[in-house]
Amino acid sequence: MSSTAGKPIHCKAAVAWAAAKPLSIEDVEVAPPKKGEVRVKVTYTGLCHTDAYSLSGSDPEGAFPVILGHEGAGFVESVGEGVTEFKEGDSVILLYTAECKQCKFCKSGKTNLCQAVRATQGQGVMPDKTVRFKVKGQEIKHFMGTSSFSQYTVVSEHSLVSVDKKANQQKTCLLGCGVTTGFGAVTNTAKVEEGATVAVFGIGCVGLAVIEGAKARKASKIIAVDINDGKESWAKKFGATDFVNSNKLGDQSVVEKLVELTDGGLDYTFDCTGNVKVMRAALEACHKGWGVSTVIGVAAAGQEISTRPFQLVTGRKWQGSAFGGVKGKTELPAMVDAYTDGKSPIKLDDYVTHETTLSELQKGFDYMKAGDCIRCVADMSK
Amino acid sequence: MSSTAGKPIHCKAAVAWAAAKPLSIEDVEVAPPKKGEVRVKVTYTGLCHTDAYSLSGSDPEGAFPVILGHEGAGFVESVGEGVTEFKEGDSVILLYTAECKQCKFCKSGKTNLCQAVRATQGQGVMPDKTVRFKVKGQEIKHFMGTSSFSQYTVVSEHSLVSVDKKANQQKTCLLGCGVTTGFGAVTNTAKVEEGATVAVFGIGCVGLAVIEGAKARKASKIIAVDINDGKESWAKKFGATDFVNSNKLGDQSVVEKLVELTDGGLDYTFDCTGNVKVMRAALEACHKGWGVSTVIGVAAAGQEISTRPFQLVTGRKWQGSAFGGVKGKTELPAMVDAYTDGKSPIKLDDYVTHETTLSELQKGFDYMKAGDCIRCVADMSK
Repeated sequence: MSSTAGKPIHCKAAVAWAAAKPLSIEDVEVAPPKKGEVRVKVTYTGLCHTDAYSLSGSDPEGAFPVILGHEGAGFVESVGEGVTEFKEGDSVILLYTAECKQCKFCKSGKTNLCQAVRATQGQGVMPDKTVRFKVKGQEIKHFMGTSSFSQYTVVSEHSLVSVDKKANQQKTCLLGCGVTTGFGAVTNTAKVEEGATVAVFGIGCVGLAVIEGAKARKASKIIAVDINDGKESWAKKFGATDFVNSNKLGDQSVVEKLVELTDGGLDYTFDCTGNVKVMRAALEACHKGWGVSTVIGVAAAGQEISTRPFQLVTGRKWQGSAFGGVKGKTELPAMVDAYTDGKSPIKLDDYVTHETTLSELQKGFDYMKAGDCIRCVADMSK
Repeated sequence: MSSTAGKPIHCKAAVAWAAAKPLSIEDVEVAPPKKGEVRVKVTYTGLCHTDAYSLSGSDPEGAFPVILGHEGAGFVESVGEGVTEFKEGDSVILLYTAECKQCKFCKSGKTNLCQAVRATQGQGVMPDKTVRFKVKGQEIKHFMGTSSFSQYTVVSEHSLVSVDKKANQQKTCLLGCGVTTGFGAVTNTAKVEEGATVAVFGIGCVGLAVIEGAKARKASKIIAVDINDGKESWAKKFGATDFVNSNKLGDQSVVEKLVELTDGGLDYTFDCTGNVKVMRAALEACHKGWGVSTVIGVAAAGQEISTRPFQLVTGRKWQGSAFGGVKGKTELPAMVDAYTDGKSPIKLDDYVTHETTLSELQKGFDYMKAGDCIRCVADMSK
């Protein structure tokens, strides 16, 4: 048993004290895991737009002070009462989409949206409605059930998965969110079939993973759409066959352009922008009779999508995907193994364009705003 | 060969001369069918809300003067050059959703939306862009490729299906639109499975057919929603297990009520109202993770559906259905046989609550506005 088991751990964490303020590196006290909980030493964490969105204060559910971060990997430090699935030293990936295997949702066979810890997760607390983080005696909230911007974090036993110890955590942490979200939306949610035509709106980490998913499914055409020409080479490197800059079409709408490129529209489209106007275009660029549009991006609070119902009555389908429809415990271990064995269709290494450290985590958000950043990963030991 | 073959036929038809004016019974000259066309003696026609909508002038595609009607049955009088699928005397049902079996759509295996005659059908003309109807020398437009409000009509060979001659056309004409639309939306489009929960918004002909479809699929709960209490007995007669009057819920929204009745929401919902607010409620009453909402009703021009994209990202799907996803030539003959043999899950006889005649066709629209009319069928011989 770890020498720290059962005791509070004092470590560093990046704390968001208030909306739209820079993160502050603090000495944090991390309480031992309670019943059904696991304490994890976080080694690496990706920075995702959802972290930036919450930090901006735009998320109406967002509460401060909080320790953000949800794309994390690390090792189990200790487990709470009753936890048998994990033990000290396990290599793990944190799961903001939990998997308990017992709730109505997990048992349905129809969704990955486990609800075991959903309500408390949304409130920034552990399932017993208390928190495990304190800074100078003040309680700090959890985030997305993971809070990977801390050197140690406590999560529900449903919110992490054990993977092969050989896994390079600096890369596999990305499977905790963006890459899995995009790839799974193609393979699990939309179930794109060989020969299908695909368009992807928004070429960031998630969009590139959609492209890789479409390539893995042998799509006949993969059209990348972005407003930044710099994304063309990225998109094509990952497997896109065409690139459209939707800001450079003159009088032609992006829907018209895509319909022209595909003899009537796409079999599958994916929105990875979070922009509700783009979501509409993605739907309307679908082929009459069978086109399916999948919303992946998270829209700002209060924003709504709209279309004429005729779009649906004439055979288009509008759906969404969260965490790529992937069940973390059931599916991530094999994805990690494929990566470690060099057999993954996902070029995980290529997503990491920027690196930072815990002490300079704020820089990661600056990188994110620049067009050339796909993913920034932070080394949590420094 | 019919003594009238190759010659114009003079008969009676109900002509809509202008928007929002009563239909006028006229002597119409019906030209012989050209290449690939069939002339049909219409025996019975149902009156559908789409006819009323077009007559009102609200349809931006609507052109006048026109002979409306699209839910018709009758007998083949003669065929044009090259038509081998039909012969004089065949018992037929007109198909506003054509089936050519050769276009990209028919061959896709993914949709019933044959496009063979779609463009000209929308313009109120035959595929050669001319019309077959004249009244006192003035050309009259076709409607939905069928124009069943005439004692004789000319349609594309793709726009009708031959069925068993024993079929009671006064009833089977309903399979040309409303009943098939509702039933097929459940069985073909949504593919409701045994034990699923279903809600149906709008209890007219289409809504009742949805109920029968859900019952045939052994749904565990079938909730009928309407604003008219008179529809409760109808809904339950056809198989609904529950009835909700959405105007009598006090402070509770219909979404809240349905979520309460179903432990989190419906597996499947169907909008049969054409009201975009109801379409939204139908989506949002779906169960998180897997609920599927199917839009069947036709909205007024310019109306749009909206929702928060979060509804989709958390696992609800929004789709539509036209003519119940049914391919008329492929599927209607068996549906007619099942009815004739007394083995159909569809109580076709019970849908016909009102009868009228060609000469009093306008009365049918008055019946339609009354809450107690499910379907009015007109005898075209009188």
